[in-house]
Amino acid sequence: MKTALYQMPAGIAPDARADAIETALREAAAAGAGLLVAPELALSGYGRGPVLRDLAQQAGGAWSGRLQKVVQETGTALVAGFPERAGHTCYISAMILRPVEGNTPATPQVYRKAMLYGDYEKGIFASDGPSAVLFSWQGLKIGVLICFDIEFPENIRRLAIAGADVVVVPTALPAGASGAFTATQMIPVRAFENGIFVVYANHCGTDERFTFQGMSSITAPDGTVIASASADTADMLFADIDPAAYDHVRKVNPYLKDITETAQ
Amino acid sequence: MKTALYQMPAGIAPDARADAIETALREAAAAGAGLLVAPELALSGYGRGPVLRDLAQQAGGAWSGRLQKVVQETGTALVAGFPERAGHTCYISAMILRPVEGNTPATPQVYRKAMLYGDYEKGIFASDGPSAVLFSWQGLKIGVLICFDIEFPENIRRLAIAGADVVVVPTALPAGASGAFTATQMIPVRAFENGIFVVYANHCGTDERFTFQGMSSITAPDGTVIASASADTADMLFADIDPAAYDHVRKVNPYLKDITETAQ
Repeated sequence: MKTALYQMPAGIAPDARADAIETALREAAAAGAGLLVAPELALSGYGRGPVLRDLAQQAGGAWSGRLQKVVQETGTALVAGFPERAGHTCYISAMILRPVEGNTPATPQVYRKAMLYGDYEKGIFASDGPSAVLFSWQGLKIGVLICFDIEFPENIRRLAIAGADVVVVPTALPAGASGAFTATQMIPVRAFENGIFVVYANHCGTDERFTFQGMSSITAPDGTVIASASADTADMLFADIDPAAYDHVRKVNPYLKDITETAQ
Repeated sequence: MKTALYQMPAGIAPDARADAIETALREAAAAGAGLLVAPELALSGYGRGPVLRDLAQQAGGAWSGRLQKVVQETGTALVAGFPERAGHTCYISAMILRPVEGNTPATPQVYRKAMLYGDYEKGIFASDGPSAVLFSWQGLKIGVLICFDIEFPENIRRLAIAGADVVVVPTALPAGASGAFTATQMIPVRAFENGIFVVYANHCGTDERFTFQGMSSITAPDGTVIASASADTADMLFADIDPAAYDHVRKVNPYLKDITETAQ
């Protein structure tokens, strides 16, 4: 499956963000991609502060309703970050929108971020802890994590053991030495140590509070970065996700086979 | 603590290997190092095949007896790989030799490799599965893994949660694309994702069966490689292991704190 990644400018105005994601989704579809991945809190912007609690929408809210229509029309699936309201609780979530036959579901599948980073996120959002959220699409099993989640090897391992061919990661990685290390060193290792693809979609530029690292990437199961964006420029990346082309990698480095056969 | 690493030529003749390790230990001591780390199966050679079962010694055998005397004399501790016999079973082990007051122990502490790699190792050696082996020396808690063990994030995480400041890794990483990726990409990530030091001691050159990747390294808790060897030349590396100098890293990236507070 051809997969697209939208490295989104952090400076896009709040009320233009859904438009920008829709435009990116149509561009991905026109290029033949079966899936588009957008960053963490892409629909609201990441650094807007406590107002994110007011902006948060239910999983079946206006954002997902609007974008589901484009997904239906184009046939291209979407994973995009948004602030999710569930009663009085707000989560950093990703909506998973797929084309469906017949009536579209009232509530799309979502993944809620497990590992909140720092006082900023913990002051606004809640976490229910780790979970394994996967969906099937065009013959692939696709797992979802958000940002800090993938910096813990336990979280991607959980999805790999559950059968993920690829893990898609909306992120909001801040610029700096740790950010550059995470983007260039750690993300390829996460793919390699599980023998699966990783699609890591970041913001670039600056919003009200943060400057982001950019450097979004798509990494193959052998740790090769097969598509990558610059540190500071909006971009659309495309890459083919073909697990069978990397069967040899899982024979040379049988990490999943060995770890599941070894009592921990 | 100043730490030394011996990147050992694979071509050293079998009966000269204990001599070479003793020479390296005296060199490390003369340079003020409190610890020397030598490769996997350093005392026998890695690629000698099934004869390793005949060469295997008990933990308190001739190799450890001889080297313990040098450890006592110099005051420098040693972690070195050897084939260990325990009854009819052979393990890929590392002996942990420390200067002790009074009588030296009859049986030194050992670590037995958990994750055997490929038909070669599995045809000769056994594994008892993962274990957390640590020792205290010069104010540091030091964990031990061997080669393939550290390619699984679970194994170094176990030691980090048990309080390791540094994990030392006798290895026999073969040359090739996967070897280069492991040495240059994965090992720094293992240090970074736990906020601890990693000392990764490989062979270089060629023995009867294998060519090795060299590229031994000492990595700091922020993922910075603070000492590294070439792909093909014997070398002694030295670096200062000072966890307190990296306290800020564990505040910026609180991986251990967060993972221990999160039910998995």
